[in-house]
Amino acid sequence: MQLIDGKVVSAQIKAEIAEEVRLIKAAGGKTPHLAAVLVGHDGGSETYVASKVRTCEEVGFKSSLIRYEEDVTEAELLACIERLNKDEDVDGFIVQLPLPKHISEQKVIEAIDYRKDVDGFHPINVGRMSIGLPCFVSATPAGILELLKRYEIETKGKHCVVLGRSNIVGKPMAMLMMQKAYPGDCTVTVCHSRSQNLKEMCLSADIIIAAIGVPEFLKGDMVKEGVVVIDVGTTRLPSSVTKSGFKLTGDVKFDEVSPKCSYITPVPGGVGPMTIISLMRNTLFAGKRSIYN
Amino acid sequence: MQLIDGKVVSAQIKAEIAEEVRLIKAAGGKTPHLAAVLVGHDGGSETYVASKVRTCEEVGFKSSLIRYEEDVTEAELLACIERLNKDEDVDGFIVQLPLPKHISEQKVIEAIDYRKDVDGFHPINVGRMSIGLPCFVSATPAGILELLKRYEIETKGKHCVVLGRSNIVGKPMAMLMMQKAYPGDCTVTVCHSRSQNLKEMCLSADIIIAAIGVPEFLKGDMVKEGVVVIDVGTTRLPSSVTKSGFKLTGDVKFDEVSPKCSYITPVPGGVGPMTIISLMRNTLFAGKRSIYN
Repeated sequence: MQLIDGKVVSAQIKAEIAEEVRLIKAAGGKTPHLAAVLVGHDGGSETYVASKVRTCEEVGFKSSLIRYEEDVTEAELLACIERLNKDEDVDGFIVQLPLPKHISEQKVIEAIDYRKDVDGFHPINVGRMSIGLPCFVSATPAGILELLKRYEIETKGKHCVVLGRSNIVGKPMAMLMMQKAYPGDCTVTVCHSRSQNLKEMCLSADIIIAAIGVPEFLKGDMVKEGVVVIDVGTTRLPSSVTKSGFKLTGDVKFDEVSPKCSYITPVPGGVGPMTIISLMRNTLFAGKRSIYN
Repeated sequence: MQLIDGKVVSAQIKAEIAEEVRLIKAAGGKTPHLAAVLVGHDGGSETYVASKVRTCEEVGFKSSLIRYEEDVTEAELLACIERLNKDEDVDGFIVQLPLPKHISEQKVIEAIDYRKDVDGFHPINVGRMSIGLPCFVSATPAGILELLKRYEIETKGKHCVVLGRSNIVGKPMAMLMMQKAYPGDCTVTVCHSRSQNLKEMCLSADIIIAAIGVPEFLKGDMVKEGVVVIDVGTTRLPSSVTKSGFKLTGDVKFDEVSPKCSYITPVPGGVGPMTIISLMRNTLFAGKRSIYN
């Protein structure tokens, strides 16, 4: 069993991005610029955005943080998005989710110029990904592809089972793993809460991507020998052991499943560290206009 | 075994659309207007477009046919699309594919205003379908959903195997059948030319949607008793029996598979007749502004 180390891979990619930014600047090119819009003071969102801003600094990007209070109107937020769409210095931007109930997240997502949509949530990017065209792939799926690639995991013709059908992980992972590409070219099965044959499917899987949001859902008796397991779960369970008072728990019962795996991602330290670095990579792509002109 | 009769269902829907158009006109509403752009004189394209125009007349739509010779430039075609985008009388329009090699089909598709994209090929419509938002669903997948619905075929929790991963059938069918909806809520598996476990998957399937483009690919020993089979194949094989000199052949070896089925679509007369009527329904939606304003 080999552990897929998201910390090591994300540090590698971070160094690669930083080096590329250094070369761009040395050649007199434009510094990639990521803007983040944060509404309110949700603890999780604060942490994520702070971490994104910090990583921007570490790789040499310019970053801007635009804050609104919880009571910002939808119209004000849409006007901000319009300014960012037009701001020629901003290469890409994100609006941190979730948003307060009185604002339509979908309307906000669709207001973002898809050429600056480094989160990859705009329907144009989702649609282009499905068709197999160049696009911004959202952070978690892009991070998972990168892990498979860096560990040179064979995917062609394999049976990949995706647990969960969320718009941000399950569905895009399914679309990506079935493309005529590497990683990809898999027979792909998507299972979810309504699936009647989930265990049988998992038992026949060569690769399992667990993104069902139920802690320790995937048990040892649900996988075959040699399986590759990617654990996307990040449920916070109370813990008396950790200083924070909680423990990040994946969708995989690690002690049971890992002995049967050829490769497995731990939680934490697997998929998690890849997400922010995937956003940085999308920002670099946006800065270089390598996806859209 | 019950035959799913696409001719009967499409005739029903045609009558429903014609009745709705009659009511709209009687109430002084606008007649839905479909425009079709046809480049060159490909035999298949001529037939399809003629059939679309004829069906428009039958349901009471206004239709326009815009013809270009094979040597039309991409710029001319894009200018035509721009005019149709702006023409307030045109509710929806299609550009008949395939296009000559010197014209980028993808550029043409993306130039169409997605609110008039009744073919459902624009990435925004593809993306919105994936996310589960209202959109124009392309004709063949929409027709298949309608057949499942009209025959009240149970789908929730069932294992649906999609054979083929084309952008116009396989991928959208997979996305639709996994949605939290009816028809939908299936465990979905997508198999294709690279799949190593295709037969095993088909044997475990409750529903098989065959869109792999290989005549009589699905054999009797690949399906279980009680399976629902939707045959999307339409390969023209030479025939000495028919007047036209060819025989439309599906992806299913009908004589072997049908005795094991609870439901099956024949070829011809199954999915085929549903496609034009699905385009008509999208045009009605466009005319009524029931998807986009």
